Amino acid sequence: MEEKEISQAVIGRLPRYFRYLGELRDEGVERISSQELSELMKVTASQIRQDFNNFGGFGQQGYGYNVEYLYEEIGKILGLDKKHNFVIIGAGNLGRALGNYMNFERRGFIFRGMFDQDKKLIGQEVRGVKIMGMEELESFVRDNNIDIAVLTIPKTSAVEIVDKLVNNGIRAIWNFAHVDLNVPKGVQVENVHLSDSLMKLSYNINRYMKENDR
Amino acid sequence: MEEKEISQAVIGRLPRYFRYLGELRDEGVERISSQELSELMKVTASQIRQDFNNFGGFGQQGYGYNVEYLYEEIGKILGLDKKHNFVIIGAGNLGRALGNYMNFERRGFIFRGMFDQDKKLIGQEVRGVKIMGMEELESFVRDNNIDIAVLTIPKTSAVEIVDKLVNNGIRAIWNFAHVDLNVPKGVQVENVHLSDSLMKLSYNINRYMKENDR
Repeated sequence: MEEKEISQAVIGRLPRYFRYLGELRDEGVERISSQELSELMKVTASQIRQDFNNFGGFGQQGYGYNVEYLYEEIGKILGLDKKHNFVIIGAGNLGRALGNYMNFERRGFIFRGMFDQDKKLIGQEVRGVKIMGMEELESFVRDNNIDIAVLTIPKTSAVEIVDKLVNNGIRAIWNFAHVDLNVPKGVQVENVHLSDSLMKLSYNINRYMKENDR
Repeated sequence: MEEKEISQAVIGRLPRYFRYLGELRDEGVERISSQELSELMKVTASQIRQDFNNFGGFGQQGYGYNVEYLYEEIGKILGLDKKHNFVIIGAGNLGRALGNYMNFERRGFIFRGMFDQDKKLIGQEVRGVKIMGMEELESFVRDNNIDIAVLTIPKTSAVEIVDKLVNNGIRAIWNFAHVDLNVPKGVQVENVHLSDSLMKLSYNINRYMKENDR
């Protein structure tokens, strides 16, 4: 299927479609109309049709979508039919949480290595993967076809390490450090700024309290 | 300062302004023009001015913004001048990572309690906070003025627990479970769907590879 230039807003919604369709499939649902999907997901049916039209529409309206087919196709668009090797840099609680998350493997993301500068952690294992010292990072990324680096380290080290990763062929960085990274074109960055997310929540709490006399 | 109805897109950008202004302040910068801020943050100066105009503009252009003032004002808009008590539900690696994150405290988010159903974990401490059994959750939330519940548990339990939280007066849920929650109006939800974020990264890797002959 040929894709046109798709906005990041649309891309951002695809995983949620994928998640709902996977659940429908697991429940044995075979077909679903955009209206039913709309009620389930609480987005408008016209939004759904518009989003899907970016990818050719995925089958006829009125008759509804084939759940299995739609699930598979969106999975392919997301690149989940391919394998991607990843390493986690930072073996603290957050790094360990991500390393232990089995579902990533189910989606084609293969946990290959973990790195930390803390000598006490080196040699330990997280789900069968050895924690290595930072001095091994560059050669490991180069020699093991690592696509994605997950950064769960403080912001000062993150900036330094990104250059090393880029020089050794990393394709993408999943960034949990509280800093925006500068990378060359062609290296993808997805930020998870947890503090930012909590502040947004804080705004919405206070906004609501103000409007409703606390 | 009176606020108009502000779009969630603008709200979503405020924490990033706050983060940059905090860094500028820490570096001793006193004034900054929207042009300089624009170069630093890689957004257009007109976007910055538009965003700030939602809140009255924060001072004269040309002359630049007072960094300290702007930082304080955005902090107030975000509600960071108030204290919010939170509990974490789920004492696994992700819950522990969030419990150990000191910066939340600096922003007014106070870690009060942690809950898990695993008997082995109950009674342990995370940064001085005791892990309690799930049967204590409801009374604890009610009696300790808990505003925010952080959910780091599987999706099936998340749905159940949300009802209990809502019935006991929770104001907001920071949701790391892989499910969209149904809450009554007035309860704020901020989702961190980590799988969705990783899938977006996957899309962008594959898109780039296709466009550039792998």
